Amino acid sequence: MSGIERSTLESYRERIVSFIREYVRSAGLEKGVIGLSGGVDSALSYFLTCEALGSANVIGVYMPYRTTERRFVESARTLVRMKSGMMREHEITPIVECFRNILSTPPPLRLGNIMARVRMIVLYDIAAEVGGLVIGTGNKTELLLGYFTVYGDGGCSLEPLGDLYKTEVWELARLAGIPQRIIDEKPTAGFWQGQTDEDELNISYSVADEILHMLMEKNLTLNEIESHGFEKKDIERVLYLVEKSRFKRHTPPIAPVRSQNRNRLL
Amino acid sequence: MSGIERSTLESYRERIVSFIREYVRSAGLEKGVIGLSGGVDSALSYFLTCEALGSANVIGVYMPYRTTERRFVESARTLVRMKSGMMREHEITPIVECFRNILSTPPPLRLGNIMARVRMIVLYDIAAEVGGLVIGTGNKTELLLGYFTVYGDGGCSLEPLGDLYKTEVWELARLAGIPQRIIDEKPTAGFWQGQTDEDELNISYSVADEILHMLMEKNLTLNEIESHGFEKKDIERVLYLVEKSRFKRHTPPIAPVRSQNRNRLL
Repeated sequence: MSGIERSTLESYRERIVSFIREYVRSAGLEKGVIGLSGGVDSALSYFLTCEALGSANVIGVYMPYRTTERRFVESARTLVRMKSGMMREHEITPIVECFRNILSTPPPLRLGNIMARVRMIVLYDIAAEVGGLVIGTGNKTELLLGYFTVYGDGGCSLEPLGDLYKTEVWELARLAGIPQRIIDEKPTAGFWQGQTDEDELNISYSVADEILHMLMEKNLTLNEIESHGFEKKDIERVLYLVEKSRFKRHTPPIAPVRSQNRNRLL
Repeated sequence: MSGIERSTLESYRERIVSFIREYVRSAGLEKGVIGLSGGVDSALSYFLTCEALGSANVIGVYMPYRTTERRFVESARTLVRMKSGMMREHEITPIVECFRNILSTPPPLRLGNIMARVRMIVLYDIAAEVGGLVIGTGNKTELLLGYFTVYGDGGCSLEPLGDLYKTEVWELARLAGIPQRIIDEKPTAGFWQGQTDEDELNISYSVADEILHMLMEKNLTLNEIESHGFEKKDIERVLYLVEKSRFKRHTPPIAPVRSQNRNRLL
């Protein structure tokens, strides 16, 4: 997977940009609202959305919590400046503190999920205000491993990066002109200081992506993947995460009371 | 559709109860968390969840806003008392006010969506605290007409009533022993005082359900439905609402960059 050809990356970029443009227009809208964390995923999603809709139609929203490191706001501002776009900044600390009081001080993971969902609410409200869609920032690795908050960062109108593995996000970000400093940031959900995705997932993105690619795109079996030199514990870890997070990739299942037609809903 | 046979209603009840029990257990859990509004949908969902999991495993959560009418708390408490269950009450006003300040006083509809999403956050946090699933309260009519808040009341782990039309909810509620006073409440999302579903939808539930039933369960055409004596404007209204809300019944679409396999995600 490493070292994707430039022409392949170009075609990915083109497909994503067309998809965003067509989807937003098919909803009868012109604008996109996108949360900027200072990380590479939201940076790339923001750049591609600007290409698709025009920067004047895209609002980048920076929503720090008390513990968010200061340099991220600089990254977010840099991106918006590069596109001559519009930016809003909403500190979510007072809202999160309010939840914290009412819910008697949830531990860090639960608090992180609250933050992600508070951001979703802010984005949806801005989208309603300006008449636009909420543009997601999730990549294929995160979606497959379930490394996102249901109805939090997972809550959006469309996922432009949802078919790109994390390692592909890095490559496409380089092509799209995202500053190297942002590409080099250690991936983090930002739930607490020092948190990193790879520590939490207990596997590196490069290994996870190679395994996922063989599983999902090449339909290889466990044994075949092992024969490519991957450790059994890593393969099993990936499979476990994909399996355990299946529910996160579906709408809530409906109790069927009729014998037929239950899919007509969709 | 009106006057469903008792045996049919009994079979609906049984299927829903089994579904809840099996789904929660298949997630390796025992508990359910459910928002009680004082209305009939959450009442029925609560009763059936208690039947499925045992009242001791179900937490009913009442989350009023400043403008919520006082009698609803009495209804919620009555239901929990009837099942000897557990109840929590969390006033969401301070949280919503916090959003209101940050988002410069959104108008009523947007504020209502914020309320629905704040409730989702509270329910998910309690579910994480106790180790349970968030039990939804949406019915088939609401889901089909799009009369719910995406990632708000639409945000749950499963939808026990999602295959029951609103008029069927009323009938099953009677069978399940929900107090008539609650069944007789005018349906409302409670976004503002005096709001009613039927005013907002601009069609009555009884007419909407008959039309939906013919469309979805019987696969009748527009002309065939008209020949059953329904007004064209009502049929068109229903079709319009179903069409317009299609996006609400899907997970966010993913921009496909590969030519194959995009559904392997699911």
